[in-house]
Amino acid sequence: MATALEYASARQAQQWDQLQEFLRIPSVSTLPAHKPDVERAAEWVRSHLAEAGMEHAVVIPTGGHPLVYADWLHVAGAPTILCYGHYDVQPAEPLEEWQSPPFMPVLRDGNIYARGAADDKGQLYAQMQAAEAFLRGEGRLPVNLRFLIEGEEEVGGEGIEAYVRRNAAALGCDAVLITDTTQFAAGLPTLNTGLRGMVYAEVRLRGAEADLHSGLYGGVAPNPLEALARIICGLKDASGKILIPGFYDALRPPSAAEAADWARLPFDAERYRSEEVRAAALSGELEYTPLERVWARPTLEVHGIAGGFTAAGAKTVIPARAAAKISMRLAPAQAPAAMAAAFERRVRELTPAGFTLEVEILHTAEPVLVESENRYLRAAAHALEQTYGRPPVLVRSGGSIPIAALFAQTLGAPVVLMGFATPDCGAHGPNEKLPLANLQQAVATVIRFFAAAAQSA
Amino acid sequence: MATALEYASARQAQQWDQLQEFLRIPSVSTLPAHKPDVERAAEWVRSHLAEAGMEHAVVIPTGGHPLVYADWLHVAGAPTILCYGHYDVQPAEPLEEWQSPPFMPVLRDGNIYARGAADDKGQLYAQMQAAEAFLRGEGRLPVNLRFLIEGEEEVGGEGIEAYVRRNAAALGCDAVLITDTTQFAAGLPTLNTGLRGMVYAEVRLRGAEADLHSGLYGGVAPNPLEALARIICGLKDASGKILIPGFYDALRPPSAAEAADWARLPFDAERYRSEEVRAAALSGELEYTPLERVWARPTLEVHGIAGGFTAAGAKTVIPARAAAKISMRLAPAQAPAAMAAAFERRVRELTPAGFTLEVEILHTAEPVLVESENRYLRAAAHALEQTYGRPPVLVRSGGSIPIAALFAQTLGAPVVLMGFATPDCGAHGPNEKLPLANLQQAVATVIRFFAAAAQSA
Repeated sequence: MATALEYASARQAQQWDQLQEFLRIPSVSTLPAHKPDVERAAEWVRSHLAEAGMEHAVVIPTGGHPLVYADWLHVAGAPTILCYGHYDVQPAEPLEEWQSPPFMPVLRDGNIYARGAADDKGQLYAQMQAAEAFLRGEGRLPVNLRFLIEGEEEVGGEGIEAYVRRNAAALGCDAVLITDTTQFAAGLPTLNTGLRGMVYAEVRLRGAEADLHSGLYGGVAPNPLEALARIICGLKDASGKILIPGFYDALRPPSAAEAADWARLPFDAERYRSEEVRAAALSGELEYTPLERVWARPTLEVHGIAGGFTAAGAKTVIPARAAAKISMRLAPAQAPAAMAAAFERRVRELTPAGFTLEVEILHTAEPVLVESENRYLRAAAHALEQTYGRPPVLVRSGGSIPIAALFAQTLGAPVVLMGFATPDCGAHGPNEKLPLANLQQAVATVIRFFAAAAQSA
Repeated sequence: MATALEYASARQAQQWDQLQEFLRIPSVSTLPAHKPDVERAAEWVRSHLAEAGMEHAVVIPTGGHPLVYADWLHVAGAPTILCYGHYDVQPAEPLEEWQSPPFMPVLRDGNIYARGAADDKGQLYAQMQAAEAFLRGEGRLPVNLRFLIEGEEEVGGEGIEAYVRRNAAALGCDAVLITDTTQFAAGLPTLNTGLRGMVYAEVRLRGAEADLHSGLYGGVAPNPLEALARIICGLKDASGKILIPGFYDALRPPSAAEAADWARLPFDAERYRSEEVRAAALSGELEYTPLERVWARPTLEVHGIAGGFTAAGAKTVIPARAAAKISMRLAPAQAPAAMAAAFERRVRELTPAGFTLEVEILHTAEPVLVESENRYLRAAAHALEQTYGRPPVLVRSGGSIPIAALFAQTLGAPVVLMGFATPDCGAHGPNEKLPLANLQQAVATVIRFFAAAAQSA
């Protein structure tokens, strides 16, 4: 490992040159005009994995953008790690808010500025460099390695989902390493141990056959917007408690140790409210802390209500139809299918007479919980402590990374979520950045993680 | 009067020719391309009022489409009637649903088919013909008469509102005759004695400064769509009762006699539900009959909810802002200003902490109640009974005719709402029609109304 660390450390100038090449490819997966760029980025990843010494490096077509796969499987008895990342990026608009062009990476004040610097090209490149440092520096890896890299993370990830479900046996591994998250605070080594799951539904109601005039029919015509309001109020009370029977039954609260860890995090609720959420008051279940609410409690949110008239001015329509988009974030160990069914039952029960109801579940994701007794998490913690001189904080995220749940579920392997981006990295926004030092710490930490994973076997 | 009736009866062929001319002008007030047609229609009304023998016939410009005014004021001691109607029409689209072109009037099965046949050119023309029958047939009218005809009824009527407010003194009259409504059932003589008023509001809420992701912030971020749902549920309960303090205090229920009249109307609630409202169930205050709910009870309706994401698919946004369009229909004697203030107070009280609230009142209209002890209503009832051989039914409408409230309020004159269109006349829809017999009955009834109004003085 010492040689690998030296190799990586000696090549910082080349790393920066190479990463610039990667960041210059505008691989915006959602824009059809960028399809050739997306393919160029896939090929860039493939060829650099091959140059790094990885074997069987291939670009795998999907219904959408391609996957890149490579492996190196020569240490009998050692564990196999599957490295995941994505080479596609979000659109860069609004371009006028960027201080330097999004696809012309620059170093400014020690930060790499470019679309994808943090999410996820920079962090993916760190994994690739860690593999290269072993393979080119020492001639071998201490573990078996697979890379499975996608180009549709920003657009739903359908290709990788289908591929992993179909090829679970061929992707056999002992752990999955994902470097696509952020540090809890800048410079604070961070391991993510949980993600919320998701059920996203559309609730559609029909009242009368056609829109009616509220003068002539107000008082007798069923109003589906009003019925939706009643359904929403019947799904969640003003204190944030979800009113779906059985909803909390399977919920596993964080352990006392985990809750105690969170209480020690450098977190200022007042600053979080005023500078991050930027609202006059935080909402939700006030008997839980904000971090508990976001990381460990399920929530139900309304995203939009369609139907009727919303343009400027006044129209006195009672719409025939209305629909609401409503999602639930699930906490461990709430099963999406069961929650979706309970949701639909509750909505049906809340629908007033006179309406035709349709509930469509648009998508779901499993919540993910990485058990802290997991040896790969310990290996990651050990690696982070070696790099940063202090043990990592263990946090969760309130978001859902469907691929993490899919890996955990389909491959039966624990997922290690190590994030090296800073909380203010601006992923998805203008002036996205990654400190160059964080890139170097990421490479060193992944090298140490591979070594620690081998030793802990 | 006998001579006037004979005059009208002898001129039915000419009437049909003249009305065809009027109906052929596509005076669609909402379409700028039809502005010359709208002006042509105004001039048509002016010149025919002058030919009828009305004096001072003028086209009066407004900020929008012009008004037409004429008068004949030569019977000292007799009451003055102001005749109101409108010469503009709704767009005719979808054209492919018309059996004959909307602006090529035809007689089919005894019905005049054309855009505007019922709403309101045919009914306006009946008033003009009644005046002509007296002035050309008898050389004089039994009452003093003013005509005030507008061309913006289908687009808000701002011009006439400003004009009436500014010239109330010059429009002095004892009663206003409006022929722009329908019969309760085909062939059933009908007087309308009440209209609901209106408060139309937009409620706007802001939670956080910017849209937030429901994964990262669901559970702490204030959700204005959810807050709007709570406000809506707090404004009206599931049984249709409005929960605004003081809302019902000024409400004047229909008299026992009026309610008894309604109970005798030929009304089949089941048929109304299945054929007119076309819903699986009627909503609202079930302790009142459907007619009472629509005519005499106030209601509160949500017309649209803006904010967040309503396109196809799933987006996990917690919007920063959301807005609802909500209107109340007011029953006599609820004052719009007081109801608007009570609404705003209640919305403020229902707004959860953490939100910035704005309530904008977009417009209001007074409810109208024509006292049945009114002599002009009795004159109208007498006239209808002479024409139809049976006394009219007294109904109300749940809609609001702002001009009716304005006349009542500004001119201090009772409003007589006599409708000759059939309930299935298709106003605003394709294949609009008016039975030719109804036109002739309308002319005769207005003649008799003028005579009865003079005698009752």
